[in-house]
Amino acid sequence: MRAVDIIRKKRDSLELSREEIEFLIRGATRDTIPDYQLAAFLMATLLRGMTPAEVTALTEAMLHSGEVLDFSDLPGKKADKHSTGGVGDKTSLILAPIVAAAGVKVPMISGRGLGHSGGTLDKLESIPGFNVNLSLKEFRDVLEKCGCALIGQTPEIAPADKKLYALRDVTATVESPALICGSIMSKKLAEGIDALVLDVKTGNGAFMKKQSDAEHLARLLVDTGTRMGKKVVALITNMDQPLGRKVGNALEIEECVEVLRGSGPADLRDLSIELSAWMLLLAERVPAVAEGRALAAEMISSGRGLEKFREIIRLQGGDPRVIDDPSRLPQARREARIKAQSPGFLARVDCEQVGVASILLGGGREKKEDSIDPAVGLIVEKRLGDPVHSGDTLVTIRYNQDQLLPPVVSLLDRSFHIAPSAPPTPLLIHKILAAK
Amino acid sequence: MRAVDIIRKKRDSLELSREEIEFLIRGATRDTIPDYQLAAFLMATLLRGMTPAEVTALTEAMLHSGEVLDFSDLPGKKADKHSTGGVGDKTSLILAPIVAAAGVKVPMISGRGLGHSGGTLDKLESIPGFNVNLSLKEFRDVLEKCGCALIGQTPEIAPADKKLYALRDVTATVESPALICGSIMSKKLAEGIDALVLDVKTGNGAFMKKQSDAEHLARLLVDTGTRMGKKVVALITNMDQPLGRKVGNALEIEECVEVLRGSGPADLRDLSIELSAWMLLLAERVPAVAEGRALAAEMISSGRGLEKFREIIRLQGGDPRVIDDPSRLPQARREARIKAQSPGFLARVDCEQVGVASILLGGGREKKEDSIDPAVGLIVEKRLGDPVHSGDTLVTIRYNQDQLLPPVVSLLDRSFHIAPSAPPTPLLIHKILAAK
Repeated sequence: MRAVDIIRKKRDSLELSREEIEFLIRGATRDTIPDYQLAAFLMATLLRGMTPAEVTALTEAMLHSGEVLDFSDLPGKKADKHSTGGVGDKTSLILAPIVAAAGVKVPMISGRGLGHSGGTLDKLESIPGFNVNLSLKEFRDVLEKCGCALIGQTPEIAPADKKLYALRDVTATVESPALICGSIMSKKLAEGIDALVLDVKTGNGAFMKKQSDAEHLARLLVDTGTRMGKKVVALITNMDQPLGRKVGNALEIEECVEVLRGSGPADLRDLSIELSAWMLLLAERVPAVAEGRALAAEMISSGRGLEKFREIIRLQGGDPRVIDDPSRLPQARREARIKAQSPGFLARVDCEQVGVASILLGGGREKKEDSIDPAVGLIVEKRLGDPVHSGDTLVTIRYNQDQLLPPVVSLLDRSFHIAPSAPPTPLLIHKILAAK
Repeated sequence: MRAVDIIRKKRDSLELSREEIEFLIRGATRDTIPDYQLAAFLMATLLRGMTPAEVTALTEAMLHSGEVLDFSDLPGKKADKHSTGGVGDKTSLILAPIVAAAGVKVPMISGRGLGHSGGTLDKLESIPGFNVNLSLKEFRDVLEKCGCALIGQTPEIAPADKKLYALRDVTATVESPALICGSIMSKKLAEGIDALVLDVKTGNGAFMKKQSDAEHLARLLVDTGTRMGKKVVALITNMDQPLGRKVGNALEIEECVEVLRGSGPADLRDLSIELSAWMLLLAERVPAVAEGRALAAEMISSGRGLEKFREIIRLQGGDPRVIDDPSRLPQARREARIKAQSPGFLARVDCEQVGVASILLGGGREKKEDSIDPAVGLIVEKRLGDPVHSGDTLVTIRYNQDQLLPPVVSLLDRSFHIAPSAPPTPLLIHKILAAK
């Protein structure tokens, strides 16, 4: 078998066999196929697409390029959630303790923020001492002890994805649904889970601006996971404004604690409960999603979710006192406010630009190597449809470095649009896609 | 400017600016853009195509990636011919002496054979002593002395093509018309010529099997050359059977001498005269193509073409006695014949397979590094439409290594198809495309 012949086949829109896809993925993992051939293959795949059978073969080959965790000896079902990424999207840190508190194990391997979207690991690391770099052995121990563990990608998991993702990033081949599916599902299914809830974001702050693109990807993810024997649903959710009020690493931890405490913004609470409910349903903890919602809400009202979060933090080396005293989280030294220039209603937010503003403050990464400032971020004071008076604060900026402020102010000034009448309130959850 | 953004633009079918194309080609030449980004760009270009303006910018950038020869101080126009390659295609070695003898300078830089198609350099090197590796200074000297010089690619000429071609070969991106145009025209226009005649082959022995593909490429080549200020025409010619009777390096030199001597196969003679005529016309040596044909024929009948060939051979270090005594060319030790099993007419030749048979004998290369045996080859005894009796020889095999014979015999046995009635005789020249 020769890589060039497989590339040509894909270029000519022919369906690749499972063996051909395995050959390529093995070559990528073992460095026996040069990067330039992989790059040509990735571009041909992006432009020609893949059949469902090809996507399944790709995902399985990527999954088996590394270690696949096996927690079948631990009692009960294991479930996880994956989000395609958004601004202020911190539901993982709320639903993981909720679902674990309700008795379903959550072995969660997450990524870092890149682009305008934040990352779960960066948020966790704003908790003093929190260690996301557990070995797979330690991961298992924490999972066994408290029902949930939160770590970063390890070299053992889906090494083919590590290789391909780095190449996709520099060859403009990130956006292929087939490649996205292979990347997401190979990493998630390596966690040894039985059930996966996908939060596929759409809107101006999401990678997929168009709902049809989000649905297409969601369908592919659900079908591929289902073919691979897992229980999978996808929620298509709105990202036309930040989720919750807070954007920034420590600020988002603070907001997660608020929700787990029973307060916090309604949208964040609602979506966290909905995602938890589906996880509980797919993990067979409840017989219907309505019961899942009730159980998730109970984990909040009883405080058991918050206690679970405290336990996770403690077991992973973090300072659990941040839960009761958020001032122990990194705090920015300065604050500035963006105010409304005219009265009306908040009609549109350039949500992606809000994410970019947080990066510009130092709260995210432009390049993988960049370090981040966990303390900085934004507090969005108005939501779409809210009435606004002249002089009202639209967004509060928490920052540390004076010289970073002016471009952020200028960007945010242009990102909040006020109109004379209220826009229709966007639906938080557009659609739910289950296995066919 | 970032390579990834340019790749993305091409991926999304947007037109690249001249500056973006120059940035990529400069990066390819100087190795500042990694191969994997070039490979993704090549695949996106193959699948998305390029506008005429992009192709022109690409060709110019590739041309100026290296040295562009300038022979403007030498009197008269300079012309060359390029063929997209076929089996038994040896017209260069006939028309170069003819056109030079008629007073138009021919500074010809050629390639080696690869795939089923032979290469001018390999054929020339079958002449004992012939040196195709002249420096550009020596190239100029020979051109000045006798009006024609025949050399191989030098590192100074279009280095971007060398880089890109090697990548295209292993990433299934050879077939892009835009990339083919950039590759051919950058090398040819670096020769410092005023006029270029293109022989774009079509048929089962050509790279372009379909005439419409050949015409599309021919139109692109003519338009691009014309935009770059050169006189260009393209002849679309038939490659459903080998050109002339002989296939193999020394054998083809022998046949060129036959044609220059006034004998030789009619198809080879006719096409050589036609291509010469167009070169003479574009170089303004004659006012019309009919006069070009007459002048070319006169160069044969007067023996001046043959004398010119002798002079070129002498000036480039070869043994000119091969002209009068072909036995001084490398000779194969053994001969075998493929005979007709049934009577009828020669109805179809798998022309590409005839080229492959010549490679299998050692006469061509499967990989760039392969060495070749100049003596071996084939003599095709029947042409399409010829009546065939049982037992007639269809093709004579000249070989050196016994163990190479059986697969060649088996391949050739399957490559000549006899039918009860004569097929329509294929046109040698399908079409001539001139500047619009």
